[in-house]
Amino acid sequence: MVTSEDMTPSFSRKIPDGDDRERSVCRHCGFIDYQNPRIVVGSVVVAGDGRLLLCKRAIEPRKGFWTLPAGYLETGEAPEEGAMREAREEANAELKIDRLLAIYSIPRISQVQLLYRAELLNKDKISPGPESADLKLVPWRDIPWPELAFPSVVWALNAWNESKEEAAFAPYTNPQGGL
Amino acid sequence: MVTSEDMTPSFSRKIPDGDDRERSVCRHCGFIDYQNPRIVVGSVVVAGDGRLLLCKRAIEPRKGFWTLPAGYLETGEAPEEGAMREAREEANAELKIDRLLAIYSIPRISQVQLLYRAELLNKDKISPGPESADLKLVPWRDIPWPELAFPSVVWALNAWNESKEEAAFAPYTNPQGGL
Repeated sequence: MVTSEDMTPSFSRKIPDGDDRERSVCRHCGFIDYQNPRIVVGSVVVAGDGRLLLCKRAIEPRKGFWTLPAGYLETGEAPEEGAMREAREEANAELKIDRLLAIYSIPRISQVQLLYRAELLNKDKISPGPESADLKLVPWRDIPWPELAFPSVVWALNAWNESKEEAAFAPYTNPQGGL
Repeated sequence: MVTSEDMTPSFSRKIPDGDDRERSVCRHCGFIDYQNPRIVVGSVVVAGDGRLLLCKRAIEPRKGFWTLPAGYLETGEAPEEGAMREAREEANAELKIDRLLAIYSIPRISQVQLLYRAELLNKDKISPGPESADLKLVPWRDIPWPELAFPSVVWALNAWNESKEEAAFAPYTNPQGGL
């Protein structure tokens, strides 16, 4: 008899037929768990008065630190749609996406981040969603740099500041040495 | 007794605890198969004489049609590294990546494509890899438009042609109405 405990997923590493690298294959059912890098979509969100939207993380990792509204792109979604959904989920914020600000690649955690420059359309109606403990709109000079959650938040805010007067530009990529 | 047939993966759709949308969950072992969009990386590859590299597909889909060297980004890879690997696998081509040419989103098949402009470094030494039936280097006027494999190949070649004299530009995105 196979008990429910026997049936918990149990993966071993092997190279499937016709493949050229090791994958995780379930010992029980043969399911191949193809792991591909995941796409994070998010935005540097600017209100009409130039203030920037930050969200205080209510969840790990980096709970209590400030971040941009961002998260995993879902299947069937265009990246801009995903960035708008994340802002809605985390801050009840309605965005107008302006353009792609940056593409960051974080191979260590297998993420590619697509970060947009966006305009906040409902600044008087934003409120924290379940993954946010708090929100704020801050002018550039008041960004809490030491309390930002991730390096790419720092990079994206700097990229926004450098390019804020520009209409067309190549998207920023990882700063020198930045992984 | 559970036979091997009983153990083939069998997924049903349900919303896992703490999640907000349906996922495929294995009836046998409870494994949750999070499906995220996948990242395709590839290049418009140009030889020093201005000719463009095309690869004839040896595999389905669109076997026998011409495409750009491109494929799925693997875990732990930066997108530029993935684009270089794909050119090596499909054409034994060594590239110098120049810049991001285009980002195309194909939500219907949950793909985000990052296509680079790249220089071919070893034009006299290219040869078809296992997924290519043939290769060719063609001048712009000889591109076999009706025999290109995918709409995004057409889009990327046009984007390359439009921007080939430009050093810095915003990456192209899906043409109007293009999904």
